[in-house]
Amino acid sequence: MSIIVLGTVALDTVKTPYGKRIEMLGGSAAHFSMSARIFTDVHLVAIVGKDFPRKYINFLKNKSVVLDSLIKTNGKTFKWEGEYKGDLNSALTKKTELGVLLEFCPRVAKHQQKIKNVFLANVDPELQLKLLECVQAPRLVGLDSMNFWIHNKRKFLLKVFKKVDIFVANDREARDLSGENNLIKAAKTLRSLGPKMVLIKKGEHGVIFYCDKFKFCLPAYPTDTVIDPTGAGDTFAGGFMGYLSTQKKLDLKAIKKAVVLGTIAASFNVEAFGMERTSKLSLKDLRARLEEFKKIVLF
Amino acid sequence: MSIIVLGTVALDTVKTPYGKRIEMLGGSAAHFSMSARIFTDVHLVAIVGKDFPRKYINFLKNKSVVLDSLIKTNGKTFKWEGEYKGDLNSALTKKTELGVLLEFCPRVAKHQQKIKNVFLANVDPELQLKLLECVQAPRLVGLDSMNFWIHNKRKFLLKVFKKVDIFVANDREARDLSGENNLIKAAKTLRSLGPKMVLIKKGEHGVIFYCDKFKFCLPAYPTDTVIDPTGAGDTFAGGFMGYLSTQKKLDLKAIKKAVVLGTIAASFNVEAFGMERTSKLSLKDLRARLEEFKKIVLF
Repeated sequence: MSIIVLGTVALDTVKTPYGKRIEMLGGSAAHFSMSARIFTDVHLVAIVGKDFPRKYINFLKNKSVVLDSLIKTNGKTFKWEGEYKGDLNSALTKKTELGVLLEFCPRVAKHQQKIKNVFLANVDPELQLKLLECVQAPRLVGLDSMNFWIHNKRKFLLKVFKKVDIFVANDREARDLSGENNLIKAAKTLRSLGPKMVLIKKGEHGVIFYCDKFKFCLPAYPTDTVIDPTGAGDTFAGGFMGYLSTQKKLDLKAIKKAVVLGTIAASFNVEAFGMERTSKLSLKDLRARLEEFKKIVLF
Repeated sequence: MSIIVLGTVALDTVKTPYGKRIEMLGGSAAHFSMSARIFTDVHLVAIVGKDFPRKYINFLKNKSVVLDSLIKTNGKTFKWEGEYKGDLNSALTKKTELGVLLEFCPRVAKHQQKIKNVFLANVDPELQLKLLECVQAPRLVGLDSMNFWIHNKRKFLLKVFKKVDIFVANDREARDLSGENNLIKAAKTLRSLGPKMVLIKKGEHGVIFYCDKFKFCLPAYPTDTVIDPTGAGDTFAGGFMGYLSTQKKLDLKAIKKAVVLGTIAASFNVEAFGMERTSKLSLKDLRARLEEFKKIVLF
C-alpha cells in the first residue's frame, strides 16, 4: 500500500566537522521519502519555489517519488542553514528562510486521496489538519512535529493529536510537550493526548516505542561514522512508516520490525551528507546491516 | 568463584523529588556488593571510621558480604551528600567529607589473596594499584573510576589501565578520558589504553560493550519509577562482574548475559533509596524481570 507524506522540501546548507554542503536537497518530506521509497510508493505533498533546481525534481522522480502534489510557485524555496559541532547530536540553526512555506496550502491530487497511509512530517499543525481533510479514510496516520509548534501552535497540535495513530517525537520534544522528564512517563502522557502509539527517538541512544499493550526499546546502530545527522529522524520515520504501509496487520511483530528497519535506515543517513547515502540505499543494504545489527543487540 | 571489591563504604545523604535519606549506607563497594552477592561470595576491601553504625556492619554481614578486609579506624567515615533534580540523570554534589579515605591503605586478608576475580570500584587509582599488589593471580580484573581521577591522577589511572581486563565508565567519563565525543570511537581509544573490554554506561539509555571481537548494545530497562539512582552504576557493575565470576568461559554468551543481568540489577536499584530495594533482591526477582525485559528488547 502507498503512503502520502506531507512536509518540507528544502535547500539545506550544512556544516559539520567533516565538511560543508551548500543548498543540497533536504527537508522533512524529502528525507522521509528517501527511506520510505525502499518499501512502497511514496506520494509527496510539499511546496517549492521557482529557484528549486530542476536536477532535484529529476532526482526525486528517478527515486520513484510521486510529485503530483508538489506545488511549484514563484516564491523562494524554504532554506535551512545549520552547523553541527562536538558529538553531532544537535544542530545549531544559523539561518531559516521560510519562503514559500508561508503561502503553503497542501493539495492532494484526486488519485492520491484514497491512499491509506499518511505521514504528517514536521510542518505547521494547521497544514497537517488541512492535509487530513484531503484524504478520505486513512488506516494509519503518523505525526512528527517540533518544539516551535509545541510552543507556538499547541492548540492546533493537540487537535492533530486526536486524529493520528502514531506520534513520533525526539526526546526533547516528548519531554517538552508532556511536561515529564522521565521518558516512559512522557510517552504515557502523550498517549493520553490521542495517539494510540508513541515513538520517542533518542538519536545515538536509539528509540522507545510505547502503546497500551507493550513497550519496545531498541539501541541505535553503533557507528563511529557520523558525518551529517540532518534528516536522520525523518529517515527513521520513512523506514518505519514505509515498512508498516506494506503490512496488513499492525501487530507487535510488524511494529518491532518497522522500528528496527527505521533504525537501520537512519544509520545509513548519518554516514554522509544529506541524501548522499540514503539515495543509493537498497533493501539488500538494509537486510545486510540488519543481520549485523542482530548480532550487536540480540542475546 | 569469589570476587574481591575495592572501593568506598560511605554514609550517603540523598535528596530527590521523592524524599530524603540521611546518612544511609552507601559507597561504591557497598552498592557493588549488594548485587554481586546474588551471584557469588563478595569480599569487601574498604575503610570506615568509628562513627560507622554497628547496624550497617550487621546488615552487610547478614547479606553474606565478607568483611575480613574492612578496616575500622578512629577517624570519620566517608560522607557524601547529593541532590537529584529534574530527570534524575545526574547528581548535584552538595558536600563530600573524605574522612578516613585520606588514610586508606587497602589490605587483603591472607585467605582472600588467591581470589581470582577483582573489581576496582571508584577510588584513588593509587589505591587501586595497591590492591592489585595484594592479590596473587587474578583471572579477571574490572575497573571503575570517575572524572576527578581522570583529571587529577591521570598518570596513575593509565597505569591501572595496563593491568585490568575490563574498564567500566559512564558516557561522560568515557568521552573525557578518550577525548572522543562519539562513544564507539571513545571505546576504541579506551581499549587502546590497555583493557581488552570496555563497558560504557549511559544511565537511562543503557550500555555499550566493546571489545576487539564484538560489540553489544543494550537499552536500560524502561521504568517510570526512578526514586534514587545513587549507586546504579555500581549495582550494574556488581551484577555484571558477579555473574562473570561464576562463568568458566568469558565468551560472547557469558558477557551478553552479564551485561543483561547488570542492567536488570541496576533497574531495581533506582526504584528505591540507597539499598532499600537491592538488599532484598533475589535471583528469582532478577529472572522474573529478565523475562519481561526480553519481551521489551528482543525482536
